[in-house]
Amino acid sequence: MVQIIRILQSQKLEKLSEGYTMENTEQLMKKLLDILDKNSTDANVVNEKSNEIPIGISNRHIHLSQLDLEQLFGSGYQLTKLKDLKQPGQYASKEMVTIAGPKGCFTNVRVLGPARSHSQVEISKSDNFALGIKAPVRESGDIKNSAALTVIGPRGTVNMESKVIVSKRHIHMTPSDAVHFRVCDKEEVWVKTTGERAAVLGEVVVRVHEQFRLECHLDMDEANAISVRDDDYVEIYKPY
Amino acid sequence: MVQIIRILQSQKLEKLSEGYTMENTEQLMKKLLDILDKNSTDANVVNEKSNEIPIGISNRHIHLSQLDLEQLFGSGYQLTKLKDLKQPGQYASKEMVTIAGPKGCFTNVRVLGPARSHSQVEISKSDNFALGIKAPVRESGDIKNSAALTVIGPRGTVNMESKVIVSKRHIHMTPSDAVHFRVCDKEEVWVKTTGERAAVLGEVVVRVHEQFRLECHLDMDEANAISVRDDDYVEIYKPY
Repeated sequence: MVQIIRILQSQKLEKLSEGYTMENTEQLMKKLLDILDKNSTDANVVNEKSNEIPIGISNRHIHLSQLDLEQLFGSGYQLTKLKDLKQPGQYASKEMVTIAGPKGCFTNVRVLGPARSHSQVEISKSDNFALGIKAPVRESGDIKNSAALTVIGPRGTVNMESKVIVSKRHIHMTPSDAVHFRVCDKEEVWVKTTGERAAVLGEVVVRVHEQFRLECHLDMDEANAISVRDDDYVEIYKPY
Repeated sequence: MVQIIRILQSQKLEKLSEGYTMENTEQLMKKLLDILDKNSTDANVVNEKSNEIPIGISNRHIHLSQLDLEQLFGSGYQLTKLKDLKQPGQYASKEMVTIAGPKGCFTNVRVLGPARSHSQVEISKSDNFALGIKAPVRESGDIKNSAALTVIGPRGTVNMESKVIVSKRHIHMTPSDAVHFRVCDKEEVWVKTTGERAAVLGEVVVRVHEQFRLECHLDMDEANAISVRDDDYVEIYKPY
């Protein structure tokens, strides 16, 4: 409703009604409906051009503090870059660990670099069931009272308490992107995909930073549920 | 747009405009916007009461023909009911099999009863990756040119060619439900969920039959991606 009022204000409704009399109220209605029609089309998808946001799909992975890295891989150990990730400075390392919960474990879990101030394990909801834990859906870094796992490396083991989350879906973008998409940092938006499992996903957090590159991060459950792959696209969708 | 026109027609706009003059065009506009506002709220969710459709989440499972059942479990074998499923006549049996693809296998895959005229394996998209196959997203029974798996039972093995699908999400309902929800058999609808991973899923096929019980079937990928459990609810959502 607020949107409709804004549209009318932006279209200067006062001017629209000039020249209309009781006799041509119908014409006035038609004109108003034309405006509503045009704007409802425009407003649902943010921009007709370049409104695509590439998808980046995250499999389960781990970020390690230097302390935990050395505990798992040995004193003074440094990560070896395997390949750059899309977000500048971030990379997949050659190193992998095993993560184990009360019900199951996963081997070959990729360590992402560089080392961070705090370790954090990111898994999917289906991994929760396989591992027998209940990691909550959280934004990266929000790990208070999150879940626990045992992490096993070639030189040692670390019991990670409150360091396991299911990553809340999010979009990385620059301040310039934010202006383009008319969103702001920390805003939660809906994103739309098309195809054989078309969907509109809510609760997608926008994260704005000069160093980010435009990318919508989903996990494997989400990617499979909506049948999308790396570098497919979402569009920000404003249903209201 | 069609919807707006219908709303205006249903509200008998001609009557609405009676008594309005050029001087109170603003009032007329306000009245029109009130109607649009009320109707957009009403129209998005089909019915204010009892619009909830319970969710049933399917893990990977297999339906067997009597021939394949005997090949896997022995001559003259009959399934043993473990528990009834929500759809009348359908049940989870005590029997389980192993399904194996070129990259991996799953043990303890539940056989659903009763035996059918054709065998059919239903897996998730994430299972596709684990098994190393490419089962397509299909409606039950639409198995032409679908994927292949080896099925292993206690007494034998069956190579199932073109019998493996990822089940297309769908809603079972009675003809009476169909009237209530204003949908028809084979129609594809959108369903909306709320919560920490709120989403609107498209490409949901409505299946209408006297013997069905109201239930929206999702697979594990979908359930995890939108954070829902058995007996949570979806609502049919009409975005346009």
